[in-house]
Amino acid sequence: MLEVLRPEEVADILRTEFAAGTAGCEEVPLPEALGRVLAEPVLAEEYVPDFDRSTVDGYAVRAKDTFGCSDALPALLQGAGKVLMGEAPGFSLKEGECGEIPTGGELPENADSVVMVEYTENYGDGTIGILKSAAPGMNVIYRGDDVKPGQEVLSAGTVLGACEIGSLAAMGKGSVCVRKPLRVGILSTGDELVPPEEKPGPGQIRDVNSLLLDAMLRENGAVPVSFGILRDQEEVLEKTLREAVRACDVVLVSGGSSAGEKDATSRVIGRIGRLLMHGIAIKPGKPTILGKVEGKPVFGLPGHPAAACFITRLFVIPLLFRMQGRHEKPRVMEARLSESVGANHGRAQVMGVRLKEREGELYALPIRGKSGLITSLAESDGYFMIDRDCEGLPEGARIRVRPL
Amino acid sequence: MLEVLRPEEVADILRTEFAAGTAGCEEVPLPEALGRVLAEPVLAEEYVPDFDRSTVDGYAVRAKDTFGCSDALPALLQGAGKVLMGEAPGFSLKEGECGEIPTGGELPENADSVVMVEYTENYGDGTIGILKSAAPGMNVIYRGDDVKPGQEVLSAGTVLGACEIGSLAAMGKGSVCVRKPLRVGILSTGDELVPPEEKPGPGQIRDVNSLLLDAMLRENGAVPVSFGILRDQEEVLEKTLREAVRACDVVLVSGGSSAGEKDATSRVIGRIGRLLMHGIAIKPGKPTILGKVEGKPVFGLPGHPAAACFITRLFVIPLLFRMQGRHEKPRVMEARLSESVGANHGRAQVMGVRLKEREGELYALPIRGKSGLITSLAESDGYFMIDRDCEGLPEGARIRVRPL
Repeated sequence: MLEVLRPEEVADILRTEFAAGTAGCEEVPLPEALGRVLAEPVLAEEYVPDFDRSTVDGYAVRAKDTFGCSDALPALLQGAGKVLMGEAPGFSLKEGECGEIPTGGELPENADSVVMVEYTENYGDGTIGILKSAAPGMNVIYRGDDVKPGQEVLSAGTVLGACEIGSLAAMGKGSVCVRKPLRVGILSTGDELVPPEEKPGPGQIRDVNSLLLDAMLRENGAVPVSFGILRDQEEVLEKTLREAVRACDVVLVSGGSSAGEKDATSRVIGRIGRLLMHGIAIKPGKPTILGKVEGKPVFGLPGHPAAACFITRLFVIPLLFRMQGRHEKPRVMEARLSESVGANHGRAQVMGVRLKEREGELYALPIRGKSGLITSLAESDGYFMIDRDCEGLPEGARIRVRPL
Repeated sequence: MLEVLRPEEVADILRTEFAAGTAGCEEVPLPEALGRVLAEPVLAEEYVPDFDRSTVDGYAVRAKDTFGCSDALPALLQGAGKVLMGEAPGFSLKEGECGEIPTGGELPENADSVVMVEYTENYGDGTIGILKSAAPGMNVIYRGDDVKPGQEVLSAGTVLGACEIGSLAAMGKGSVCVRKPLRVGILSTGDELVPPEEKPGPGQIRDVNSLLLDAMLRENGAVPVSFGILRDQEEVLEKTLREAVRACDVVLVSGGSSAGEKDATSRVIGRIGRLLMHGIAIKPGKPTILGKVEGKPVFGLPGHPAAACFITRLFVIPLLFRMQGRHEKPRVMEARLSESVGANHGRAQVMGVRLKEREGELYALPIRGKSGLITSLAESDGYFMIDRDCEGLPEGARIRVRPL
């Protein structure tokens, strides 16, 4: 039996034993890249925009031709032409000339600024009165203002959300190189388990963890692979675990809540690979196992669904992100505790909370309940951690809540 | 020309004109329900768990048989049997008896608590010594502790995340009634636009908004329907808009950044339906249009991608959520401004930020740049709003950041 480790020690083992960025890569068309992780940085190959553009409807001018003009003393410029959307301007500006231009239109040569139509008068004889002097660059987006060739626009590890897709579209990237999703095997063990669609008989319960883990993995970009519910027989577990390790990048053995089943899981891992730890000083989630089989991580998760959920959130998902070289965006919400919580007596504690806004302030309502109770967790908006050395937190204490 | 409205007034119009919860419903199997919105509350039909369970490995006892015992003076109980996982106990407890039980095992009749194996001694002659007195309920999850029949476990409008899926699995729900995803039509207009995969010619730019909106809609559970890029011809716009309104629940007309194109969009909406507003006092995003055609919302979005993104986030997505009767979870992150920002001169302003943690505190770095620049937005972690009457915010001011 290995000694019980602190959560930071478990994180250290994961970092030491499993290298970052080991997930494979593939090229996918841009519209299919939503939610995927960039495998390499994206550099711009073109100027965006590719020409100087007006940001308003008005007249393109040479700023110095307008210096000193006013309502009372307009600058009188000759109209040299009209810019059409989606076409190159058919003219350039000479001294004392201006050109009509729509929002988004390309600036004619020699123009350096645009005066909004509200500050102009069209005298109808080809002469335009400019009522407000322009500064160079006014109402103009210059060529390359958004990006220039060679510039790194997105770094490796970026998760491609809508804005990133938009940005790649602007740069003309038709496809991107992203990480292949990790395949994660799920084995449920326990003689008491029946599939969720079955009515449990005496002493039986439904296998909640398989569907819970399946959903958590999909939410985080992994591909779950189910290996079904196993009876408590060590040879069955060993055979299926070997199979899962061959077929997957990571394996989760869920359940087996009794000490005998836990021992079977750690014995099998020790036999076909290496047991790295057994037991975390965290509540809920103490009966957690970590091993390495054929170089791949194998977790033994607690049988209680809420505990399995927290351990997956705290240790499995960060590992998956690391293997994908994925950046996690900060998602911390500061909130005030709506009621006091007690001490942990030497174990870190993770607690689900509901969030409520009251008078512009965010309050966290701790969800109490025994660790097996998954329905209480379904109401939660996130979780927070209480340090093992914490003597308890008073009502109103500021805590840091992360989404589950 | 309608007058420019404040953002709150636009929200009021949306609430008044478009009813909540109009999206249709459908029954889907549980594993496919991830990310969907519950159409009706879910009530439990069974007890979860369905029997009294032990939460530890140990001995099931009648608490009163153990009162007053200690290390020095163990209570001596007769072993009445052994509970096996997944089976009903084959015995009940009489006075002075106990039963061996694994974690998750069903309590035998008359037992009301479980003593952990660490606090017991097996004398090998059928007698068990109990070294610590039990209180009724100790180490037990009672039948129905998680849920009882008739109890509302999830409310209508809940988005089904992993914990909710787990909770439904625990209750034996094989399928759930969820909202049908809303179909949202996307029309891009503008003579200057070319599809993102094409190389723009002189005066042309890539159509970024189509892919940006497509991704934003998918991220928020809607089904985008593309109607392509339209040239600036009012009859083409009218024909396609009619078609889109017939095929979709909501229509977004994107782009047309010049005044002429904007006028065409509002004229067409006015002709085939009703124009509700034209222009929001917000930066970026002023040239926004809202109309109602055959009872359905039609938005005219700004052509600049960043502006289109913010307006979609602030007005379109909340409307979609309302039509689905969907609850939004609080997702506000408090952060400190890393630098001062100036006044808005009578317009509300929305600004992208990057978030960084420094010494345990979250800092927001405002992303400056012209509204057309989508690549700058791709680096952002969220956005915040500055009130129209705000005279600017100093460095270090606390702001409320929401994810984009």
